Amino acid sequence: MALIVQKYGGTSVGSIELIRRVADKVIARQHQGNQMVVVLSAMAGETDRLLRLAHEMSPEPNLREVDVLISTGEQQSVALFGLACQAKGVEAVSILGFQARIETDEFHGRSCITGIDPVRIQNELDQNRIVVVAGFQGINGSGDVTTLGRGGSDTTAVALASALKAEVCEIFTDVDGVYTTDPHLHPKARKMRHVSYEEMLELSSAGAKVMETRSIEFAMRYGVRIHVRHSQKDEIGTIISEEEEAMEDRIVSGVAYNKNEARITVLKVPDMPGMAAKILGAVSDAGIVVDMIIQNTSAGQEGRNTDFSFTVPQTDFQQAMALITQVAEEIGAERVLGDDNIAKISIVGVGMRTHAGVATKMFQTLANEGINIRMISTSEIKISCVITQKYTELAVRALHDAFELDK
Amino acid sequence: MALIVQKYGGTSVGSIELIRRVADKVIARQHQGNQMVVVLSAMAGETDRLLRLAHEMSPEPNLREVDVLISTGEQQSVALFGLACQAKGVEAVSILGFQARIETDEFHGRSCITGIDPVRIQNELDQNRIVVVAGFQGINGSGDVTTLGRGGSDTTAVALASALKAEVCEIFTDVDGVYTTDPHLHPKARKMRHVSYEEMLELSSAGAKVMETRSIEFAMRYGVRIHVRHSQKDEIGTIISEEEEAMEDRIVSGVAYNKNEARITVLKVPDMPGMAAKILGAVSDAGIVVDMIIQNTSAGQEGRNTDFSFTVPQTDFQQAMALITQVAEEIGAERVLGDDNIAKISIVGVGMRTHAGVATKMFQTLANEGINIRMISTSEIKISCVITQKYTELAVRALHDAFELDK
Repeated sequence: MALIVQKYGGTSVGSIELIRRVADKVIARQHQGNQMVVVLSAMAGETDRLLRLAHEMSPEPNLREVDVLISTGEQQSVALFGLACQAKGVEAVSILGFQARIETDEFHGRSCITGIDPVRIQNELDQNRIVVVAGFQGINGSGDVTTLGRGGSDTTAVALASALKAEVCEIFTDVDGVYTTDPHLHPKARKMRHVSYEEMLELSSAGAKVMETRSIEFAMRYGVRIHVRHSQKDEIGTIISEEEEAMEDRIVSGVAYNKNEARITVLKVPDMPGMAAKILGAVSDAGIVVDMIIQNTSAGQEGRNTDFSFTVPQTDFQQAMALITQVAEEIGAERVLGDDNIAKISIVGVGMRTHAGVATKMFQTLANEGINIRMISTSEIKISCVITQKYTELAVRALHDAFELDK
Repeated sequence: MALIVQKYGGTSVGSIELIRRVADKVIARQHQGNQMVVVLSAMAGETDRLLRLAHEMSPEPNLREVDVLISTGEQQSVALFGLACQAKGVEAVSILGFQARIETDEFHGRSCITGIDPVRIQNELDQNRIVVVAGFQGINGSGDVTTLGRGGSDTTAVALASALKAEVCEIFTDVDGVYTTDPHLHPKARKMRHVSYEEMLELSSAGAKVMETRSIEFAMRYGVRIHVRHSQKDEIGTIISEEEEAMEDRIVSGVAYNKNEARITVLKVPDMPGMAAKILGAVSDAGIVVDMIIQNTSAGQEGRNTDFSFTVPQTDFQQAMALITQVAEEIGAERVLGDDNIAKISIVGVGMRTHAGVATKMFQTLANEGINIRMISTSEIKISCVITQKYTELAVRALHDAFELDK
């Protein structure tokens, strides 16, 4: 008898009829002899509706109260799911964050899970009940309701799978699985059977949003085997697991892209300690998340200065430019350049670790297409290049073909 | 510094704008130097909407899951209220049933409060915060969410006022207070300044629904002083408290009526032990609540039988008639008569205890109007008569005038 944790997102539980269908699927899996734990999101649109109410009430709503408000969405989903099972003659019990003892830190709106005590859930499973857990919510040390931020239900599912030592954590979503690249962008994109946590993390941060980064990190840390699959199809999707298992004997596993970033370059920054911290401090103090950061060693005749570049989300571009322009003046940099007409193209693969020439092949492929590389950044299993945005599709296809990802 | 518990019903918090207005009222009272605890119901219509969803999902929905579902209504109200206060620069904190440690028994959908541990609420008050508590909900010994049944937020407010030793529990509603009789029915109806718990209970059971009976019982048991008042007006309403204080030196305090009952009479019931239990057992086993019960001693030439009458809610009339017809046959009664075209008229007053002639005056007043009395039942502080329904308004006015309740 296997214990399976499943997670269904908001579009899968968006109506009474859809919740019934999910209940049918879960019951069928239980009948095959499995213990079932189901994590649900709020019905599609409900969280946004509640957030609108909160903002209508207060321009900068208190996050503690927002958590109390929006956590009702998942509470309604799980209660309705419980009723759906009952209407089909199957015992099910809904469990809220505080009942599942999903303990989090104090940061409302984006809490991290610090522990789970699954004794209640285990008791319910032992009585042969389907356990349906409200995703996205937890309880902090003060006994207050917290939420885990967007995509938090994925994290709930992975954390429960870990705490319950589940055989697998199935994430039902609106895509078939993880692809070698965006299928909308390249018809030769191929669904991967396996992908390692590390690759998934790099793909995710490179813009291939199938699951929230945080839930993959959690799964990696605790070795939770994830199965990403389509909620409306019975096909096998993609398994995310340890590297050994996930290896497909490939150097490059996928090509990802991200068109939602903007580049900021500070020219002729005095080359002395503390400059990078000063520049990025102004941006991070404003709550802006920086992705790529590039600083080359100072060269040139002038000697004593360097150019410093980084990327930020496009939505924060104007604010970041204003902040950086002021900082540049303070530190005596020459000027600030900005460009929000860029794309980041990344190739990801654990095989890169042990194979030389991957970067060269990437740069050559882009060069063959006449695409100029504006920035380069590398990690152990990823190489990212910033290019002009209009070449995104061309770059993705060329790289996909060059590394034969369709094979 | 006084501690005040206030309760606002669904129509008072039915929109963002209405919640803002309630927040203004509460903040104003706090500014006068009071500690404020506010109990809210769900926004008007929300509980019914959620109940419809539950019934759409399951014809006989599991009550545990229904409680999980409908308790979200109050949760949303208190979060929005918290945000409303915050938007006005006032610290407020929402508290849910499990956080307020409102402990109940195991009966989902109609739980009774078994205890409250107000330590969290007291802590928040000590930090000068307005505490807004979700009404209607509690938590049972298994750690599950329960609800207290219709009107449950009144009970929450009274129970909190008791646990916190509040100076007063203010129940804001859509009426000005408790009237000597229904103002829609008699223009001379007068708002009472004071009414005793006992009178309020009898008035309530006689059809004058201002507050749920259960919350008044609770207030009486723990000596909680209640102030019923209009949510849109600043006027003083009616104080419900101990008899000594509430006495207005009147024999009769109010006239109530109830048009929602039906009478069933079993003729010539054999006059032997166990008959009453047999007749009422059939009805109560079916979950039907019986109100008045009348059995006269057997008289007449036949000697060995008696007539037995009782009233049930009109909605249960047909079912009760069918049950009783069968029982009558089994016990050898002559026949069963039913009448759902009745009204119960009651006069209520603690002064009755020590004054003779009140009943006579009531019967004479009705007789003067040519109204025939079909059944009579009395308690220590109430006399009820069943009459033909069309005379309801006439009877109420005549009794109100005869006992000079407008003075």
